[in-house]
Amino acid sequence: MQAESLATLDTPALVLDRGRMDANIRHMRKRAAALGVTLRPHLKTCKSVDVARRMVEPGDPVTVSTLREAEYFAEAGFTDIFYAVAIAPQKLDRVAALQQGGARILLAVDSFEAAREIGLAGERLGVRFEVLIEIDSGDGRSGIACDVPQLQDIAAALANGASLAGVFTHGGHSYAGRSADQHADVAEQERAAVTAAASTLRTAGHACPIVSLGSTPSVVHARSLEGVTEVRAGVYVFFDLFQAGIGSCEEGDIALAVLTTVIGNHPERGQIVVDAGALALSKDISTKALGAAGDCGYGLVADADTGAVMEGLYVHGVSQEHGIIRSNGAIEHAGFHIGRRLLVLPNHACLTAAAHDRYHVVDGGTAIEAVWPRVNGW
Amino acid sequence: MQAESLATLDTPALVLDRGRMDANIRHMRKRAAALGVTLRPHLKTCKSVDVARRMVEPGDPVTVSTLREAEYFAEAGFTDIFYAVAIAPQKLDRVAALQQGGARILLAVDSFEAAREIGLAGERLGVRFEVLIEIDSGDGRSGIACDVPQLQDIAAALANGASLAGVFTHGGHSYAGRSADQHADVAEQERAAVTAAASTLRTAGHACPIVSLGSTPSVVHARSLEGVTEVRAGVYVFFDLFQAGIGSCEEGDIALAVLTTVIGNHPERGQIVVDAGALALSKDISTKALGAAGDCGYGLVADADTGAVMEGLYVHGVSQEHGIIRSNGAIEHAGFHIGRRLLVLPNHACLTAAAHDRYHVVDGGTAIEAVWPRVNGW
Repeated sequence: MQAESLATLDTPALVLDRGRMDANIRHMRKRAAALGVTLRPHLKTCKSVDVARRMVEPGDPVTVSTLREAEYFAEAGFTDIFYAVAIAPQKLDRVAALQQGGARILLAVDSFEAAREIGLAGERLGVRFEVLIEIDSGDGRSGIACDVPQLQDIAAALANGASLAGVFTHGGHSYAGRSADQHADVAEQERAAVTAAASTLRTAGHACPIVSLGSTPSVVHARSLEGVTEVRAGVYVFFDLFQAGIGSCEEGDIALAVLTTVIGNHPERGQIVVDAGALALSKDISTKALGAAGDCGYGLVADADTGAVMEGLYVHGVSQEHGIIRSNGAIEHAGFHIGRRLLVLPNHACLTAAAHDRYHVVDGGTAIEAVWPRVNGW
Repeated sequence: MQAESLATLDTPALVLDRGRMDANIRHMRKRAAALGVTLRPHLKTCKSVDVARRMVEPGDPVTVSTLREAEYFAEAGFTDIFYAVAIAPQKLDRVAALQQGGARILLAVDSFEAAREIGLAGERLGVRFEVLIEIDSGDGRSGIACDVPQLQDIAAALANGASLAGVFTHGGHSYAGRSADQHADVAEQERAAVTAAASTLRTAGHACPIVSLGSTPSVVHARSLEGVTEVRAGVYVFFDLFQAGIGSCEEGDIALAVLTTVIGNHPERGQIVVDAGALALSKDISTKALGAAGDCGYGLVADADTGAVMEGLYVHGVSQEHGIIRSNGAIEHAGFHIGRRLLVLPNHACLTAAAHDRYHVVDGGTAIEAVWPRVNGW
């Protein structure tokens, strides 16, 4: 029984505004074209074939964060997939099966040990794994520095059952930036690191065709990506309060929200209670890092009929299935009858979306035009 | 293709130790018996029929946090189900369908407005909804005070299509307690509030048969529950680092963990990288509130072969599919080869479990004895 509007849908539920999403997709395509690079969008945010088909053509390059995503998108006809998390050797059987099914799967590696295992597994499984070496450009999460001897050792270890397809970096530290200039500086750190690594490898005789970097803020703000062949970005497809807070977008670009219902109204403590809690919103509080002016608690509140953000209202606290709404000013409690529908804009779209198994698609109104499934898990 | 041990299972994956869980279940049953109350366990933690059947007999009373749980457990033969979140009127159709299918569904309400709507809906749908009034005993999330006129107004509004089944409170503020005495004090606040409300209602002529309170810490530590008929607790079935930190259990009682694989080993920055990140662990950082000595980051690390916690190791940071392990001391990096299996103990079992769709059941070893599905979503 499919609900037909935001007034009748069971809550909590994930709502996606198609018009806003399509505009975000158009802008990022233009941005990549202006930078002269291929856009290899990261599908870890959407995890949806219906969304992905609006982002790229099936033969276009894409990025994923789990093998389940790789399998799901390959099944749907996507044939050039970068699994951008360093591969655990135990997962190589699943990768080989995908390749034997006709998809090109690019793998990530940042150690000699893993590179050697990938090569041996390729020989054993009768495939050639294509691998990108991960470079750390300042994020300090994964990858090796661009100027260490391990770079060439790893490349040399990719023999027989494996081959070197290129280098990549993820400037996750762009999330710490607070201005366009700071984001542009991180993008330049990424560019400098991957192009230096590519240059070293090419001098040593490796082709190194792919030179990849990315994160939404660095692609939005990069000054130049000379020497880079591809950019990866994902959250831009929906955007969120954190991205708005650091200047990657405007609040009005956010295409994702959680529909919720008022289940309590407590003037005596200045609180509205809704049926979207930690499980429906996630416990992401990333906007706290933006300071008092940017802190959105667990999300900002919008009117479900108009989509307009309601001045001062935010989700102050969550338990598993309760959200507590407070206001920076005063709440007009009479307006929040039990059963009223509200929207909560997410701090972090990737995590909020992952709490749900489908999107309810609207286009600037309250009518549900489509229901699009997501692929969660591993 | 079902993996057979923690060495071969695809990661990240949720692992449940049956022996520890069964001991937790036994202890809580004894505790409720010693207090002279009925245990109505909260199944929002496990969301699993296989687990629930070890907690109670199908005809025993249980508690749920979503209607999807109610539907799932009713389908499995559970017939006395309290949905302990204030009901949104739009959900009453689903509740009526469950009742017409033979289950007893108890509803929660904390406003006159909702009580009246429930009564009208019951008349319209041809059922009698049984309702518990929620009392706020100090948590400040939902419920009304035990001594306000609304209590009797709500009870009076439950006419025709609804009837009053009792009162309940949730002492969520027990989570702020740091000693057995503080937890016992919260339990006494809960007891005092619900028994006072029940007394008021009985004086006014309502039967008020159910007087319910609960949270794991308050049930573990209550001094007396005189006048209370039922207790609700859920997280005790698995326990977690937060509950160990506030004294509800020992670390060795924790029955739940996330199996993960080492995908990076970086002596140059003192970090191990694993394939369990924000989506597999959740972003719950509740142990941060316990101070430096109790802060477990995003979870503590255990050896997958022995289950033993590895001194000083914790998950320092997460991104979507990466976990960064650091140590309070020094890491012996040579021990963490790429592909090594580790376990991460959760801060908050309810949220970590909700990131997964099944349990891989072990019993003190590494062999997977069973796979038990979970019911997520709404």
